[in-house]
Amino acid sequence: MDQIKQANVGVVYRLIDQAGPVSRIDLSRLTQLVPASITKIVREMLRVRLVKETEIPASGHRGRPAVGLELDTGNWHYLVVRIAGGRMYFAIYDMRCQQQQAENYDLPAEGAQPLEFRILHAVEHFCRQGQYASQGIIAISVILPGVVDSESGIVRRMAYYPVRDMPLGTLLEQYTGVPVFVQHDISAWIMAETLSGASRGARDVVQMVIDDYVTACVISEGRLLHAGSGSLVEIGHIQFQPDGLLCHCGRHGCLETLISIDNVLLRLRQLLNQRPSLLHGRPVTCENVCGAALNGDALARQVIGEVAEHAGKALAIMVNLFNPQKILIASPFNRAATVFFPAITQSIYQQALSAYSQHLTVESTTFSGSDMVIGSARVKQAMYDGSLSMRLLQTNQRL
Amino acid sequence: MDQIKQANVGVVYRLIDQAGPVSRIDLSRLTQLVPASITKIVREMLRVRLVKETEIPASGHRGRPAVGLELDTGNWHYLVVRIAGGRMYFAIYDMRCQQQQAENYDLPAEGAQPLEFRILHAVEHFCRQGQYASQGIIAISVILPGVVDSESGIVRRMAYYPVRDMPLGTLLEQYTGVPVFVQHDISAWIMAETLSGASRGARDVVQMVIDDYVTACVISEGRLLHAGSGSLVEIGHIQFQPDGLLCHCGRHGCLETLISIDNVLLRLRQLLNQRPSLLHGRPVTCENVCGAALNGDALARQVIGEVAEHAGKALAIMVNLFNPQKILIASPFNRAATVFFPAITQSIYQQALSAYSQHLTVESTTFSGSDMVIGSARVKQAMYDGSLSMRLLQTNQRL
Repeated sequence: MDQIKQANVGVVYRLIDQAGPVSRIDLSRLTQLVPASITKIVREMLRVRLVKETEIPASGHRGRPAVGLELDTGNWHYLVVRIAGGRMYFAIYDMRCQQQQAENYDLPAEGAQPLEFRILHAVEHFCRQGQYASQGIIAISVILPGVVDSESGIVRRMAYYPVRDMPLGTLLEQYTGVPVFVQHDISAWIMAETLSGASRGARDVVQMVIDDYVTACVISEGRLLHAGSGSLVEIGHIQFQPDGLLCHCGRHGCLETLISIDNVLLRLRQLLNQRPSLLHGRPVTCENVCGAALNGDALARQVIGEVAEHAGKALAIMVNLFNPQKILIASPFNRAATVFFPAITQSIYQQALSAYSQHLTVESTTFSGSDMVIGSARVKQAMYDGSLSMRLLQTNQRL
Repeated sequence: MDQIKQANVGVVYRLIDQAGPVSRIDLSRLTQLVPASITKIVREMLRVRLVKETEIPASGHRGRPAVGLELDTGNWHYLVVRIAGGRMYFAIYDMRCQQQQAENYDLPAEGAQPLEFRILHAVEHFCRQGQYASQGIIAISVILPGVVDSESGIVRRMAYYPVRDMPLGTLLEQYTGVPVFVQHDISAWIMAETLSGASRGARDVVQMVIDDYVTACVISEGRLLHAGSGSLVEIGHIQFQPDGLLCHCGRHGCLETLISIDNVLLRLRQLLNQRPSLLHGRPVTCENVCGAALNGDALARQVIGEVAEHAGKALAIMVNLFNPQKILIASPFNRAATVFFPAITQSIYQQALSAYSQHLTVESTTFSGSDMVIGSARVKQAMYDGSLSMRLLQTNQRL
């Protein structure tokens, strides 16, 4: 019974969030739930101030205005915590994903206390000092570059920090009393893109990040691949050149050794010695390389074209395996999108099964990996599947 | 309510199937369902003769024997239909997956009637003539080499048959009145391996078939990839050699052009002209090549080693993406397992991320793709998830 009620609460919340203001009659019509159920769920949502009533103007000029329901954004909030290379970022969001307050702090790799306690104390400090201390924080979403067992909230390993099996989720939950979601940042990111970004509504999506590291994430049939485990889609370590450069993973010639930013800029610097280019006498940065490519510089175009070709080769494999409707690319090279994207698309078309590539679109992500808002997707998912929204109706737990 | 009852019926059925004979008390303990629920579900199962009571000897020598429950295999059956290259195969199974009756018929690519009607008439004929005509057939599981929309039962395309969007599932359901599951044969196969074969109980499995075609199938977190769509894991069309042989898909140098049986035997015949080998003067078949390899023939070993190396390259990519516990190989080259498997494993180890490959095992499938029993897995899944077992309790529908 509880499972069904939970699912119903989630569906009603989702409709009010996405279609509000919406009348009780329309909620009943759209959910196929009997009016009595809608009345009961809405009554509870009103009681805990998750939603509020508002007037919907009548469609005809003579009708009375109807009573609609929409989110009550003044009451409940959630906290997003992002950890990345020496800093931690905090932001409070309302239930419409609007940022209310933000702060960031140093978080060095080594400290007097274990990492999890330093994070915990910062959460404590941030919540105490802010105006949200006494307000309702209903969940904490933690995103970080690491191998995470999402179900237990245990961080197996992290980039930058010497972490081994850190029980961050449990610790934060015990201390704060609210649900804590811990995710690899790229998982949060593709969820955000699919909830409200470039792949909105798509059922099958491959997202590739080409930056200091080369990673990917997959949504297949609406479901995040490896959602319940700590595994990642290690696209960056597909071996492209067995006699290539040594990769940090211990193998030679991984895709990452060919197209990570550092390696691309290194190659460009080597080529600059032999070739004319607009880049001579300017810092060799992604921004300048993209600018030069957009201005027709042959060398910059060649190097970006090579990145696109290698990326396209890996993406063609992903197309054959996952048959996605959308491929999202996140990369500093996106600045030269008019050069970069057609080259990726062409590379995919040349190598992937045409039945799978013909309806495919390749686009830039909407968000960046450092956008705090990507931490919202997991919270929204828990509101929509009912696990978090039901909990709100049952308790008045606050941080 | 119905959803929960359905799930409970499925769980109770699964336990009786897997652990029977089992007492009601143990069912309650194992499922955490209250005794009254167990009593009610079991009563209904007894009524429709899905299960039966049996004595369980007492563990101590003084106790009375307890009443246990086990499957009643005499009453209900299901039909497996396999279609492949010009023939159709029928087999009736009891609920313990024991074959009761089998038959096969010609099914030419072209005929006087559309393919779906020829299949339908054969089902009708088979069921009429057999002793199972008046017995309870509770479901039909159809497996075929084709692109299938599993949810709607529509066969988009098939190997050998000029089919376009054939509504086989609906047609058979309308005619027989029982649920019909239509699956690509490799999907059925990996489900069977994971239910009761080589990958039994594994949550993450990659199966690769190296035969006339090169295909793969993936189970990730216990769930079949592409279960709800017609997409296949098109591993055979990963491009390995852009300047390689023309593939039937229209591209050059796909993995399939390197390791499909035809192409391997062709290459071996070419090499035979230049090299000594035990194969001289004998038909160049997979069986003979494997035999020669096992007898130390250098040429046969080289060719099998090359297949293993290419397969391992593709499998290393699969390991990086899916982090499976098991890789299953189905191939005529499995006859030379002691040569073939170590070479595949070595190729994977050399190319995959070591964190993902270190605990991996590479094994032969238990079943062959022509085993009718692989069609049982989908029926068993529907009994275990409750969708089919619940239906049995609600109706007395028979074919």
